[in-house]
Amino acid sequence: MNLVPNFLLKRASLTPNRIAIEMDQQKLTFAQLNQRSLDIASKLYANGVRAGDAISVFMKNSMEMAILLFALKHIGAITVLHNLRLTPNELAFQLKNSRSKLLVTDAEKVNPLLKVLVEEEGGIISMDALSQWEAGPFPLVEEFQLDLVDTIMYTSGTTGHPKGVKQTYGNHFWSASGSALNLGLYEKDAWLATVPLFHISGLSILMRGVIYGMRVVLHEKFDAEKVNEDIMSKGVTIVSVVSTMLQQLLDELGEKTYPGTFRCMLAGGGPIPLPVLKECEKKGIPVFQTYGMTETCSQIVTLSPEAALLKIGSAGKALFSCQVKIVDENKEVPAGQAGEIVVKGPNVTPGYFHNEEATTRAIKDGWLHTGDIGYLDEDGFLYVLDRRNDLIISGGENVYPAEIEAVLLEHPSIGDAGVAPMEDDRWGQVPVAFVVLKNLDVSEDEIVDFASQRLARYKVPKKILKVTELPRNAANKLVRRRLMEYMPKPGSTRSHDHED
Amino acid sequence: MNLVPNFLLKRASLTPNRIAIEMDQQKLTFAQLNQRSLDIASKLYANGVRAGDAISVFMKNSMEMAILLFALKHIGAITVLHNLRLTPNELAFQLKNSRSKLLVTDAEKVNPLLKVLVEEEGGIISMDALSQWEAGPFPLVEEFQLDLVDTIMYTSGTTGHPKGVKQTYGNHFWSASGSALNLGLYEKDAWLATVPLFHISGLSILMRGVIYGMRVVLHEKFDAEKVNEDIMSKGVTIVSVVSTMLQQLLDELGEKTYPGTFRCMLAGGGPIPLPVLKECEKKGIPVFQTYGMTETCSQIVTLSPEAALLKIGSAGKALFSCQVKIVDENKEVPAGQAGEIVVKGPNVTPGYFHNEEATTRAIKDGWLHTGDIGYLDEDGFLYVLDRRNDLIISGGENVYPAEIEAVLLEHPSIGDAGVAPMEDDRWGQVPVAFVVLKNLDVSEDEIVDFASQRLARYKVPKKILKVTELPRNAANKLVRRRLMEYMPKPGSTRSHDHED
Repeated sequence: MNLVPNFLLKRASLTPNRIAIEMDQQKLTFAQLNQRSLDIASKLYANGVRAGDAISVFMKNSMEMAILLFALKHIGAITVLHNLRLTPNELAFQLKNSRSKLLVTDAEKVNPLLKVLVEEEGGIISMDALSQWEAGPFPLVEEFQLDLVDTIMYTSGTTGHPKGVKQTYGNHFWSASGSALNLGLYEKDAWLATVPLFHISGLSILMRGVIYGMRVVLHEKFDAEKVNEDIMSKGVTIVSVVSTMLQQLLDELGEKTYPGTFRCMLAGGGPIPLPVLKECEKKGIPVFQTYGMTETCSQIVTLSPEAALLKIGSAGKALFSCQVKIVDENKEVPAGQAGEIVVKGPNVTPGYFHNEEATTRAIKDGWLHTGDIGYLDEDGFLYVLDRRNDLIISGGENVYPAEIEAVLLEHPSIGDAGVAPMEDDRWGQVPVAFVVLKNLDVSEDEIVDFASQRLARYKVPKKILKVTELPRNAANKLVRRRLMEYMPKPGSTRSHDHED
Repeated sequence: MNLVPNFLLKRASLTPNRIAIEMDQQKLTFAQLNQRSLDIASKLYANGVRAGDAISVFMKNSMEMAILLFALKHIGAITVLHNLRLTPNELAFQLKNSRSKLLVTDAEKVNPLLKVLVEEEGGIISMDALSQWEAGPFPLVEEFQLDLVDTIMYTSGTTGHPKGVKQTYGNHFWSASGSALNLGLYEKDAWLATVPLFHISGLSILMRGVIYGMRVVLHEKFDAEKVNEDIMSKGVTIVSVVSTMLQQLLDELGEKTYPGTFRCMLAGGGPIPLPVLKECEKKGIPVFQTYGMTETCSQIVTLSPEAALLKIGSAGKALFSCQVKIVDENKEVPAGQAGEIVVKGPNVTPGYFHNEEATTRAIKDGWLHTGDIGYLDEDGFLYVLDRRNDLIISGGENVYPAEIEAVLLEHPSIGDAGVAPMEDDRWGQVPVAFVVLKNLDVSEDEIVDFASQRLARYKVPKKILKVTELPRNAANKLVRRRLMEYMPKPGSTRSHDHED
């Protein structure tokens, strides 16, 4: 029961002439997508890429990226997907940790960065250069073994040390089938991916496309006007969004509404504010709120539109093949009581890449301990109270306070640091830092510069607030939620002199 | 990846108020179906039924039968489903072979038969009596292990010795998800089961209902008028049929047609004759032809309506998670060449119950050898020529009854046709045809002429025998080996010697 046909190979044989991916004016059928990925696979193989090799991909959403992703599966290589916003240091860590043999990138943009890395880490190639490589025969992987690792994505988690989440072929299949059992699967479905393919929210759309035989409309990045245009004119029926995107779509939409065939806004990254939900209801736009993470290969809990206004703020119920429960000190707690959210299902990662310790800590008896806090109501609906250790979600990107704090503490003038979210109209949340200085002469700009060199831009604190001490508990552990007490009210200015 | 929630328990928690099953004027929601099956489970347990026990079910389609089937899963018992048309000897064989601990039946009908068995095999109870049993607490199976056996169904296969086909929880899940990936899954779907639940064609509908959260409309048996009525008035969107049922539905339908929401006639049990396909196309009735068997837990190869008229006679392509190939002496043969059909996929049985020998013979290296004969065309579409045991070998040539029947059914005066081998001194075997006439005036010579124009000489039936009906099983499938009972003794009647 553990072997299924190679997804794209099978799809191309079942429905060769259906459109697989549409991007701007470009379209590829499943047969073309398959043919082009077979071509790239043969070039990769001729140049030494083998089954089981970890191969890094550092690219923006494009046809070429999709082709490459399926090429790597044709060989049986493990694909490591990196966030394009990583700094050289961050990328270097992930390359080393994943033991990547080769990094493929859309060259022109990232060349300066890669120059730094190339000496240190070896094999780096642009997608253009790869296309020029010699081709040759290669052993095509005709069947996928469901428990083999397909993709790796890094998340930072609680410690600040990024961990590579293993996503197996089975994880992807069960995720796609679980989503279809919940949302249905219509002949005319087309799913718009405006989220990055290096995130599970984007990659899972690409996988569903191939598994369902469904058209994916791909955007390089989120642009509200373009999204609305494609919903109107390209027959898009489903879009994956986060809360702030949804707000922008509504703003851009103005008095108009979507065609009746539009059937799902799949909204992740935290609850949707009530006024947004109400407006969507008024416009007849079905919103499915969802909770998921890299470790669950996208959705694991989803709220149907019928329940959206009855269960405001809820993420819904665990999908058909999945389970969710709330535990406190490893004991399940009754309805209404908050605790850690733990989840289980065939879409849940088997663990972290080259990191047994983190795996053992996170997965116990088949249950993944998410580190997120929440409760189940009497009807079994999940309410997420707090993302894992104060996870900040900024424009759909996960920002981990611990990772930023670790960087700030490297600065010679900073004695202590704590990071917390601040509400932001555009990004939903942005990180702000509270610092205890050893040397009072250091300026906010200097600290921001220091952080910018070490952290992707979305992780750089938008404010640096100088304080005399940080809230710590008896065990001297930082109590991040109490940082909020130091927080300036939204809209107030000159907030960085809060301790005055 | 091997554990998923108990299907009905999960479904009842996700969509408790949706209708699960509708039969005549009775309706049960998923919550009610679950509650009633928990009640029966507690009674079974209090009276000694345990996880892993084989429990036999000998019932006609009913709410009670559906409830019982899910009750047995709640305990973790193995359900053995018996064909209601079995003779006492046949049933006794299956009970003994499966080591059934208890047989549950809808008493009044089968009492005389069961009296014979009760002394020999022990525990037999009517569903009515079971409902009166004491209840008690029991250990509810909250998670299904995908590789555990859920159900057993007996098939005769080529040797005439019935074998119990093991169907695991995983087989059922993958079958349901594979079907959805092919046919889609619509919010308003309702699947009509008029085929028996003791056959995989019926049981798989019940499983899909629970896995999809879809309404199942259940009939005790096939009745064309009632089926058409329910399609018209009960929002049925999908019906599972065999070829003759489809013909009867069209006849009964007359000038009318189905609502636009009706979206699938899933047609198994052999190819649909061209005139029937044409009429369905004219009426806008989508027909999905399919090939499957007890061992594949229902569909494994399905033909979409787009391809139906381009690939007449084809069963289609293997579903997304499945594979099909044609072998001759264990070697794969090229497109266009006939051989044995072998299939693979997570919906394929792990083997036969208490019959290692048959398992080893049928499943080699993960591939199930179906014993059926067919070929794949250049585009990968499967054509099933015949079930192997019906193969007629005449003068060294292979003759496939299904092919001859399809031709005869194109004759406007022939309502039904079956072809069987007759011993022949000169050729070894020759085919003879049994026909049910719509117009009694047509002569044997006319039919032979009609066939001769369409078939190579060695395939033309050497006798045309007029009968009033053909032997069909409970699923309405032609039982060719029983045609022999209609056969005249050699030399006893005037033979149409076509070789002259």
